[in-house]
Amino acid sequence: MLGTVLYGPGDIRFEERETPKIMEATDAVIRIAATCVCGSDLWSYRGLQPINGPTPMGHEYCGFVEEVGSAVKSVRPGQFVVGSFATSDNTCPHCQYGYQSSCMRREWMTTAQAPLLRVPLADGTLVPTPGVPSADLVPSLLATSDVLGTGWFAADAANVKAGSTVAVVGDGAVGLLGILSAKQMGAVRIIAMSRHQSRQKLAREFGATDIVTERSDEGVARIIELTKGIGADSVLECVGTQESMLQAIQSTRPGGFVSYVGVPHGVELNGEQLFFTHVHLHGGPAPVRRYLPTLIDLVWNRKINPGKVFDLVLPLDQVAEGYRAMDERRAIKALLQP
Amino acid sequence: MLGTVLYGPGDIRFEERETPKIMEATDAVIRIAATCVCGSDLWSYRGLQPINGPTPMGHEYCGFVEEVGSAVKSVRPGQFVVGSFATSDNTCPHCQYGYQSSCMRREWMTTAQAPLLRVPLADGTLVPTPGVPSADLVPSLLATSDVLGTGWFAADAANVKAGSTVAVVGDGAVGLLGILSAKQMGAVRIIAMSRHQSRQKLAREFGATDIVTERSDEGVARIIELTKGIGADSVLECVGTQESMLQAIQSTRPGGFVSYVGVPHGVELNGEQLFFTHVHLHGGPAPVRRYLPTLIDLVWNRKINPGKVFDLVLPLDQVAEGYRAMDERRAIKALLQP
Repeated sequence: MLGTVLYGPGDIRFEERETPKIMEATDAVIRIAATCVCGSDLWSYRGLQPINGPTPMGHEYCGFVEEVGSAVKSVRPGQFVVGSFATSDNTCPHCQYGYQSSCMRREWMTTAQAPLLRVPLADGTLVPTPGVPSADLVPSLLATSDVLGTGWFAADAANVKAGSTVAVVGDGAVGLLGILSAKQMGAVRIIAMSRHQSRQKLAREFGATDIVTERSDEGVARIIELTKGIGADSVLECVGTQESMLQAIQSTRPGGFVSYVGVPHGVELNGEQLFFTHVHLHGGPAPVRRYLPTLIDLVWNRKINPGKVFDLVLPLDQVAEGYRAMDERRAIKALLQP
Repeated sequence: MLGTVLYGPGDIRFEERETPKIMEATDAVIRIAATCVCGSDLWSYRGLQPINGPTPMGHEYCGFVEEVGSAVKSVRPGQFVVGSFATSDNTCPHCQYGYQSSCMRREWMTTAQAPLLRVPLADGTLVPTPGVPSADLVPSLLATSDVLGTGWFAADAANVKAGSTVAVVGDGAVGLLGILSAKQMGAVRIIAMSRHQSRQKLAREFGATDIVTERSDEGVARIIELTKGIGADSVLECVGTQESMLQAIQSTRPGGFVSYVGVPHGVELNGEQLFFTHVHLHGGPAPVRRYLPTLIDLVWNRKINPGKVFDLVLPLDQVAEGYRAMDERRAIKALLQP
């Protein structure tokens, strides 16, 4: 089987890898219908996160079950399924509390940019769709696997509800789908921070009511101004840098909520400063499995179209171009077809 | 008037100060029935927080209204009142959201270890009791002014509710009253971290079900063990150091809640580490004004007895001994009578 491997900064190869097979009785192997490049893949692609030698890539996936282990009960070959980037047994205490991405038996999916994928803990990780989806639904179903699930968690963790005033820091695919999620949860005002016209357009389509192009202190000042000196109820931090985190915290009203959903890189929070902001802070790897049934349902019934974030579609063997396009911000998100 | 002034590390004096008077139409002047020394006063007393020259001290108070400014409507001379360490108009947006300690017109009270006290924004800051309290209720009413209000906020901000498993880091007066608060909110298991026998005793009296004497990593390991490998639902951080903060975060289950209510000193949180703990974090200066009506009611009807944290009662002119006793941990908290 040919699959995606990162060799070093900027060096993505599509090359021979071992074909995945059932290793544990709780595994499934799925034939991927669509996979994609994640914003988080760019940290290592850019050399900002070290790798130890050649590293297979990819953690977003949907497709057909090819084979299951002897203990798997809830999915069967031929079904179309979506899974999270974190495996979960969906029965341990952390899973029961809705934090499946901290499952006591969690493994990170890391080899999904390939035609075949082994999924451990298949019963607790995979969710079948109601039937075989039509082709136009596949991008949106793929989105539920991570980027929508993460945007949804961002809105949920920031306590977005009917009537909320929301700000979203970051106009990548997660930020854009955070906007869509906030809209679904009833936010009446959604301020998108973006300076890219194509992303602003999609932000508005997903529900943004205001666009702020300023950054850092100027961006904060603009949000405070737009909220009449109060600050936003909920701010979704969808970047993961020190600048974006402080921008999010400072844009929130006292007693408001800040979520952060991308792995922070170089972020240090001063306890005393945080204390006097009076914000709630919650984040972490999105517990996508908690939301999958709801999100699949919304997509299946065409209530939402998160697949629009894929503005570049490539055959899987051109995966390197997908990374390049995202790195250069020519594409919001690249979908890959095996 | 004689009042309390800090001159430098360990140097508390009770000396002539200007007698407070009405300066704004929204002020009240109250004759203090009881005041006390706060754990937070010890930071500057110990020289761990710099002061700029001689500094009047004290921010916890209750007593009789002596005089009010011409615009004051909700309290009148002769009434017994309690107020917060932060003044609030109780009408601005932040106040309306319940974050009165971030009121847009907030001032910090800093001169309460004295017989008379000027309280700005009297209407929004002071809450009258139903009548003149009997003497035995005064310590508990004084406690609502800060130490109970702060312990209550710690429990509330950590989402304590019926059935919760709670851990409390810190066995000072705030931690002890965090235990009392968690008990009132329905926690079924309350783990107190304490190595002082007299404090353990009070902790149990207030509702603690378990005592952990270990600290740091050993303390965390013990809480994880006591919670069957899961971690606590809610952890109240009532100290304000790097060690106590990390201990609180690491003792919490993924998706659980950490509150922090003492001004953090030297606390730096690494974003990436915090991310993978999956905890909710909320804290800040307690919005005591939000809770005062409830807390006064509980005290007035003798449902709770938070005044028990005062294990040392001194005439106000012996305030220096109150600081010494608390600094040396001979006393949990010193009540001062003018």
